[in-house]
Amino acid sequence: VSVLYKRVALIGLGLIAGSMSHAMRRAGLAKEVVGTARSAATRAEAREIGLCDRIVETAAEAVQGADLVVIATPVGVMGAVAAQIAPHLAPGATLTDVGSVKRRVIDEIAPHVPPGVHFVPGHPLAGTEHSGPNSGFAELFENRWCLLIADERTDAAALSRLSRLWQGMGARTEVMDADHHDLVLAVTSHTPHLIAYTMVGVADDLGRVTDSEVIKYSAAGFRDFTRIAASDPTMWRDVFLTNREATLEILGRFTEELFALQRAIRTGDGDHLFDYFTRTRAIRRGIIEAGQDTAAPDFGRGAARKETGT
Amino acid sequence: VSVLYKRVALIGLGLIAGSMSHAMRRAGLAKEVVGTARSAATRAEAREIGLCDRIVETAAEAVQGADLVVIATPVGVMGAVAAQIAPHLAPGATLTDVGSVKRRVIDEIAPHVPPGVHFVPGHPLAGTEHSGPNSGFAELFENRWCLLIADERTDAAALSRLSRLWQGMGARTEVMDADHHDLVLAVTSHTPHLIAYTMVGVADDLGRVTDSEVIKYSAAGFRDFTRIAASDPTMWRDVFLTNREATLEILGRFTEELFALQRAIRTGDGDHLFDYFTRTRAIRRGIIEAGQDTAAPDFGRGAARKETGT
Ligand SMILES: NC(=O)c1ccc[n+]([C@@H]2O[C@H](COP(=O)([O-])OP(=O)(O)OC[C@H]3O[C@@H](n4cnc5c(N)ncnc54)[C@H](OP(=O)(O)O)[C@@H]3O)[C@@H](O)[C@H]2O)c1
Ligand SMILES: NC(=O)c1ccc[n+]([C@@H]2O[C@H](COP(=O)([O-])OP(=O)(O)OC[C@H]3O[C@@H](n4cnc5c(N)ncnc54)[C@H](OP(=O)(O)O)[C@@H]3O)[C@@H](O)[C@H]2O)c1
Repeated sequence: VSVLYKRVALIGLGLIAGSMSHAMRRAGLAKEVVGTARSAATRAEAREIGLCDRIVETAAEAVQGADLVVIATPVGVMGAVAAQIAPHLAPGATLTDVGSVKRRVIDEIAPHVPPGVHFVPGHPLAGTEHSGPNSGFAELFENRWCLLIADERTDAAALSRLSRLWQGMGARTEVMDADHHDLVLAVTSHTPHLIAYTMVGVADDLGRVTDSEVIKYSAAGFRDFTRIAASDPTMWRDVFLTNREATLEILGRFTEELFALQRAIRTGDGDHLFDYFTRTRAIRRGIIEAGQDTAAPDFGRGAARKETGT
Repeated sequence: VSVLYKRVALIGLGLIAGSMSHAMRRAGLAKEVVGTARSAATRAEAREIGLCDRIVETAAEAVQGADLVVIATPVGVMGAVAAQIAPHLAPGATLTDVGSVKRRVIDEIAPHVPPGVHFVPGHPLAGTEHSGPNSGFAELFENRWCLLIADERTDAAALSRLSRLWQGMGARTEVMDADHHDLVLAVTSHTPHLIAYTMVGVADDLGRVTDSEVIKYSAAGFRDFTRIAASDPTMWRDVFLTNREATLEILGRFTEELFALQRAIRTGDGDHLFDYFTRTRAIRRGIIEAGQDTAAPDFGRGAARKETGT
C-alpha cells in the first residue's frame, strides 16, 4: 500500500486513535499524523511517547490542511467536536468517526459538515478494556471488521479511499446502513456489556459473599465478565444513552428468555435447559470457523501468561 | 512431592478427570491411576491416548483396592455412582468428587458411604469450554483454587492428604462449608453462565440480524459469552437443577439491578450509568492483583493466536 492521505488529524487520543496512529505508521499510509485531545495531560502523554508527528492544542488547529479527519472521542461529544472543527475543514477533505453508535452520531455530526467535505462514518469492531494514549497498539485492527456507513449521497471515491485505509491497517471492511449497524451492535456488544456490568455489580453488592471471595474464586464465567465490565465508563454511558432504542429492544428479549430459563430451573425442567444449552453451542462453532476467535482452551490464556509473565 | 496414593480410581474420564491424570503423572503423585467411563467409546478413546494406567469397564471394578476414589461425572448422576461403588470401596479409602455443586451432591453421596471410608468432597475452580477424554491437560489446575468441603466429622488425615494431592497438581486449596460454597459459586460461575447462555440464545433468535452477522461481527463482549455458552449442556443442566436455590436468589438480584440500569437508559440518567460502571472497574483490578487473570489486553489473544496458528 502507498500513502493514502497527506495529513490525518486525530481528534481524541485514546485506544482507537492511538492504535490507528501506530497502524498507519507501520504501513506508511499517511505522510503526517496530527493529534489533539481534550486535556493537557493526555496531550503531554501522547507527546512523550511520540504517538503522532505533531500534537496540537485544539481540534480546530489539528484539522487545518488535513485530507482525513477522524473524530475518536466518546460518542456523546462528537456533535460538539464537529461544530468546533467545521469552519476549519479543508475543502475536499474526508471526515470520519470511530464511534460505537452510528444513527445518533450521524444525526449530530451531519448538520455541521460543510459542502465539499465528505462525511463517511465508521466503526472498527476492535477494542480492549484499556483506554488512554498509552493503550494503543498497531495490531488492534488486524483481522477485525471495520463497518463503514454509506447511503446514496455518500461520495464513492472518499468511501473507497477510507476503506483502503482500514484495510491497510489490517481490518476487513463492510458497508452497512446506520440503523442496522445499531441493532447488530446492540446484540453483539452493547447488551452483553450491560449484562456484564450488572452481574459484576451484583457480586459487589452481596453481603454474604465478600469482594475478596468473589475475586479469589472467580474462575471462568465471572472473570470474563469483569474484563468486559472494566471498560471505560464514559464511553459506555454514551453508548447506552445514544443507542437507547436498540439496546432496550434487545434487553426486552433477553429478560423474556431469562425468565423462561429461570422458570425451568424453578420447576426442574431439565429438558428445556439441556435443549437451550445445546443450541447455543452451534453459534460458538461458527465464530471459531469465521476466524473471530481462537479455539484454544481458555482463550489460550496459558500461552499468553507465559509471554506476559503474569 | 512423593507418592500420596497407591491407586487412584477415576470415575468419569472427561476434562477434569483427564487433567487430574495428566497432573498426577507429571508430579508422580499416584503409583497407579485406574479409570472408567460410562460409554465404551469414551473408554476406548482414553485407552488409545493412554490416559490412565488401566481403563476398566465398570466403576465397581475401578474402585477395587483404590485408596483414593474420585467421582468426576456430571453432578446429576453422582448419587447413583456412589450407590454402585459403595460395596466395593476399600476400608480406609478416601472418596472425593469434583462436582461444581456441593450441598446436593453431598446429600446424595453421603448416605452410601460405608463406615471406614472417608468422604471429602471437592471442587477445583478450573475449566475450559471443552469436554471429553481428549480435552484434559496437566496445567489446568495450576494456580487455581480447589475448594474442599469439611465439617466436624471430616477425617483430618484424609483431608490433609487430599489437600496435598491438589497442591501437587498445582492448585491452591481452601476449606469451606457446602452452603457457602454453593452461594459463592452461584455468584462467580453459575449465574454468569446462565446469563451468557441466555444472551447467545437471544442473538440466535433475532430475525432481523442473521446468525452469520452475529458471528461475523462479534467482537469483545458477545464473543466471550459464546465461549462460556459453548460449555457442556449436560454438566450445566445438572448444575442449575442441583444449585437451584442459590442460583434463583442471585438471578433475582441480577434482574433487580438490570431493571434499574434499564430504567436509567430509558430516562437518560447518565450519572446512574456512569457511577455503576465506575464501581465495577475496581473488582477487575482486584482480580488481576489476585493473579487470577492476565492484564494483557484482550486476554493476550494475539499471543495465543500466534501459537495456535488460528
Ligand atoms: N474502546 C473500544 O473498545 C472501542 C471500540 C470501537 C470504537 N470505540 C469508539 O471509539 C471512540 C474512542 O474510544 P477510545 O476507547 O479510544 O476512548 P479513550 O481511550 O477513552 O479516549 C478518548 C479520547 O477522547 C478525548 N476527548 C474526550 N472529549 C474530548 C473533546 N471534547 N475534545 C477532544 N478530545 C476529547 C479524550 O481526551 P482526554 O484524555 O483528554 O479526556 C481521549 O483522548 C468512542 O467513540 C468509542 O465509542 C471504542
Ligand atoms: N468442565 C468444567 O469447567 C468443570 C470445572 C469444575 C468442576 N467440574 C465438574 O466436574 C465434573 C466432570 O466435568 P467434566 O467437564 O470433566 O465432564 P465431561 O468432560 O463432560 O466428562 C464427564 C465424564 O463422566 C462420564 N459419565 C457420565 N455419566 C457416567 C456414569 N453414570 N458413570 C460413569 N461415568 C459417567 C462421561 O462418560 P461418557 O463420555 O461415556 O458419557 C465422561 O467421561 C462435573 O461434575 C462438573 O460439574 C467441571
